Amino acid sequence: MKIAGVPTRTIQFDRDRPDIVQVIDQRQLPHRLVWQDLTDLETAAWAIEEMVVRGAPLIGATAAMGMFLAALAARSRADFRPAIEAAAQRLLKTRPTAVNLHWAIGQQLAVLNNCESAAAAVDRLRAKAVQILEDDVQQCAQIGQHGVALIEEIHARTGKPVNVLTHCNAGWLACVDWGTATSPIYHAFDRGIPIHVWVDETRPRNQGAKLTAWELGQHGVPHTLIADNTGGHLMQHGMVDLAIVGSDRTTRCGDVANKIGTYLKALAAKDNAVPFYVALPSSTIDWSLRDGVREIPIEQRSAQEVKYMDGLSEGTSEGAIANVLICPETTPAANYGFDVTPARLVTGLITERGICPASEAGLLSLFPEQAMN
Amino acid sequence: MKIAGVPTRTIQFDRDRPDIVQVIDQRQLPHRLVWQDLTDLETAAWAIEEMVVRGAPLIGATAAMGMFLAALAARSRADFRPAIEAAAQRLLKTRPTAVNLHWAIGQQLAVLNNCESAAAAVDRLRAKAVQILEDDVQQCAQIGQHGVALIEEIHARTGKPVNVLTHCNAGWLACVDWGTATSPIYHAFDRGIPIHVWVDETRPRNQGAKLTAWELGQHGVPHTLIADNTGGHLMQHGMVDLAIVGSDRTTRCGDVANKIGTYLKALAAKDNAVPFYVALPSSTIDWSLRDGVREIPIEQRSAQEVKYMDGLSEGTSEGAIANVLICPETTPAANYGFDVTPARLVTGLITERGICPASEAGLLSLFPEQAMN
Repeated sequence: MKIAGVPTRTIQFDRDRPDIVQVIDQRQLPHRLVWQDLTDLETAAWAIEEMVVRGAPLIGATAAMGMFLAALAARSRADFRPAIEAAAQRLLKTRPTAVNLHWAIGQQLAVLNNCESAAAAVDRLRAKAVQILEDDVQQCAQIGQHGVALIEEIHARTGKPVNVLTHCNAGWLACVDWGTATSPIYHAFDRGIPIHVWVDETRPRNQGAKLTAWELGQHGVPHTLIADNTGGHLMQHGMVDLAIVGSDRTTRCGDVANKIGTYLKALAAKDNAVPFYVALPSSTIDWSLRDGVREIPIEQRSAQEVKYMDGLSEGTSEGAIANVLICPETTPAANYGFDVTPARLVTGLITERGICPASEAGLLSLFPEQAMN
Repeated sequence: MKIAGVPTRTIQFDRDRPDIVQVIDQRQLPHRLVWQDLTDLETAAWAIEEMVVRGAPLIGATAAMGMFLAALAARSRADFRPAIEAAAQRLLKTRPTAVNLHWAIGQQLAVLNNCESAAAAVDRLRAKAVQILEDDVQQCAQIGQHGVALIEEIHARTGKPVNVLTHCNAGWLACVDWGTATSPIYHAFDRGIPIHVWVDETRPRNQGAKLTAWELGQHGVPHTLIADNTGGHLMQHGMVDLAIVGSDRTTRCGDVANKIGTYLKALAAKDNAVPFYVALPSSTIDWSLRDGVREIPIEQRSAQEVKYMDGLSEGTSEGAIANVLICPETTPAANYGFDVTPARLVTGLITERGICPASEAGLLSLFPEQAMN
């Protein structure tokens, strides 16, 4: 999507230095736009480890590029193959629970199996990394092309700007381009459908305030930041036409694990007959699970993320980032990263193959090859 | 309740200087405990205006004390009565929409009507201010005595510590002592019932993180701070036995206007069969309203409260309070102060006269004198 009017991706080759990959340092958003060079295995691993990049698809894409960069540096080594396998191990350790990371590294190791020379391997790892990026862009674009119909239909019916609520950042910053939950929004905006987005700030890590507000603003999409507490009130008063969120993991029966607080918005949507959609690439469907609330383990993160908040310090001319304590120093805090929204609260799932009901039958209508699994 | 082991009220006469009133400067909580002297009309007005004191009952109590302090200063003036009436006007302007402010000042002006001398008026204004404080303490204590039965019943049934979730600060810091939603909690704790409180941080103004966490911690009540997004997940997993919140305004039919986000927690409680109670003094019931969602106007506050967050700056030895920007500077934000929880989501109302269903019939069973209104 656009940054200051220029079409951009979250990860791209440097235009002038074709063997250098650049990523946005997302730790510094929204206050500073800083590009980081990834020049070798270690910088790629560092970028994933230190959350310079985040979001499952972007982590996978960065790992794929890291494998290419490792091969490029090792191309003249006698132990080329062991070096690449060591690189894979290094990258796997950066975010051990990230599914896309494993998948992308696996893809690159498979490429390696069919190469007659190191030079050929470098070329093919580069090509595969590019393909992983392009596939992600394509998949997100398809989600948008299917999802935009929901927004078009509402606008056709009401003749008014369509108010969409989203939670967290399932945006292009988490992917390579378009995003998942944001893809229908960008498609609608680019088609000239009047649209306005309510952006949940998404405590405790503030991905909505930091990332979604920034990316919508840069692309020019009208939006308003709200506290996570606000969505219910807006829905009660007819100020939300549609909610679209992302998913970290979706069960075979359509239960959705997503950022903590998603469930509360789904409850409010149900209570006010607001359509509640979840946008997801099918790679996030876990066909082995049925009951999300019972079966999906919920990560507990550091209490410090609840107790401290960072931001741009007011009144400092240099715009320093400060970390402030927002409660008594001795207060215990709990930090559950995700919650599960039962399928009964989800109006539909927007996938790269189309929109379906949040149910086993719905998902199998789009993914019949999973019927026997 | 206790601060560092010492029973304390939010507003009290200075022990050594009987004509000076002291209040906690709540703007500095939780990072510093600072008592402010109220020595005259202007300091009392300032304390209300600048939110040194907040919470409807405490605002009323402070205004009543302000009237006494104004009379004390004017006791030798020929224009004593006009001076007191001017003081009333000054105090009324501090927070024009605060119902308790109007009520307390009205009480004091009524006292004035029956005084034969300025000296007698000063004595009676002082006595009335003390009575307003004591009545508030008494009313909050009664709410706690009724509400504690709910907690006792759960503990008797489960034999386990009782997990209570609360939102915002309907605590003793908003009142003179005990609080409303917190009063059953303090009563249970003081009776030795094992209890643990989940404290919603309550964005955007963080009253939970700043005030409720602080007051529970000072009194020694076990508690855990959570992001507002978290309650639904906890309820899904049986980690909440009971929710108790306060109310800013309750309709004749039991709809409850309270801090933004209350409605979302009530929806989650309903979805998980968690009892959801609202504790309120009957003075906050608006007998003229029926449909809260339609009839209660919701205050919109400054976008700055959403975009900036203050806290204790990390790494500064002097512990400076910093204000940090948590989103892009140009991001628009909306800030709705309250939402309305429909009576159908409320298990019961805890009032100073007892507990009743959240319905007109329920409320009239406790307040039959309102039947004809």
